[in-house]
Amino acid sequence: MTAIPNPQRRSEKSHQAILAAALGLCAEKGYARVTVEAIAARAGVSKKTIYRWWPSKGAVLLEAVADAVVTHTPFPDTGDLATDLHTHMSGIVKLLSSPPLGPAYSGILSEMGHDDALARAVDEELVGPRVEAAVGRLRSAQRQGELRPGADLGLAVEMLYGPVYYRHVLRRPPPSSERIASLIGHVLRSFS
Amino acid sequence: MTAIPNPQRRSEKSHQAILAAALGLCAEKGYARVTVEAIAARAGVSKKTIYRWWPSKGAVLLEAVADAVVTHTPFPDTGDLATDLHTHMSGIVKLLSSPPLGPAYSGILSEMGHDDALARAVDEELVGPRVEAAVGRLRSAQRQGELRPGADLGLAVEMLYGPVYYRHVLRRPPPSSERIASLIGHVLRSFS
Repeated sequence: MTAIPNPQRRSEKSHQAILAAALGLCAEKGYARVTVEAIAARAGVSKKTIYRWWPSKGAVLLEAVADAVVTHTPFPDTGDLATDLHTHMSGIVKLLSSPPLGPAYSGILSEMGHDDALARAVDEELVGPRVEAAVGRLRSAQRQGELRPGADLGLAVEMLYGPVYYRHVLRRPPPSSERIASLIGHVLRSFS
Repeated sequence: MTAIPNPQRRSEKSHQAILAAALGLCAEKGYARVTVEAIAARAGVSKKTIYRWWPSKGAVLLEAVADAVVTHTPFPDTGDLATDLHTHMSGIVKLLSSPPLGPAYSGILSEMGHDDALARAVDEELVGPRVEAAVGRLRSAQRQGELRPGADLGLAVEMLYGPVYYRHVLRRPPPSSERIASLIGHVLRSFS
């Protein structure tokens, strides 16, 4: 069979190559030393191609991180809320504490401090949808009577994620599986 | 009275001038654009003087932030734990969300990601001692029977501070006074 050029597939291949190159460079050199030039060179595309799809290196890495978060930290609903939250949060802690995703996300969090557009993108593309998904899982538990009616589920989500971010940002050791379980137990106790 | 030169007082005056200059510049230009040169020029000292006392601009700003945190967010012990925590945490939220301390601390948190010495200094000079003080206040409440024996007070502290850091780092709106009260209520409920 003769290969028929498929612009869409080629474009998708470049897209994935750019995300992979950005993450690889971030793991090797640290976020601060990654440049759009270097990403383009490694992915075999032009800088213009990258800027056609993303406004900055932070935006490229955000898409890579967001993809990985959605893939690796689902919200299972087995009917056992504590176990489901433990599965979900262990996935988050593992992602945050391993290269290349952990350092890439740290770099994005740093850059957000002085890049308003990136801060908005993080909220719209990653944090907002994930918080909504988490609230959705808690709401389903609330309907089953596991959480009390009227409980502030947004606060519950912040009490679950907050301590994980606290340790990540302050570069303290990530919480162990037992500590994650204890955190979940305390949060559920206070909302049940 | 003739002014008698007092090297120690002059040195203390320079020290304070450097901290004030660093914070002022940070508020005006943003953390990333502050340089040791600019701090020295504004404080009327040489760069050498600054480097004699601190290894980096991050270290200068860390001392300024740590001073302010200790001054503005004490751990009162009136005997009413929920009220005392509300006083303390409202102070933290206010500091984090106002210039010049808020942006300065954001800048330090960013820089910590790729400056191991600064990360250690933040832990040793700011976070470690504050966590210890918070645990101490909770332990006193535990002795009074307000928190159950054997409760993991370190986890309680992370559950209190975590959601505040979460919002600060993700640049979400700082929690209102009511939300702080609700957070404290939930944490105390889960440890009592």
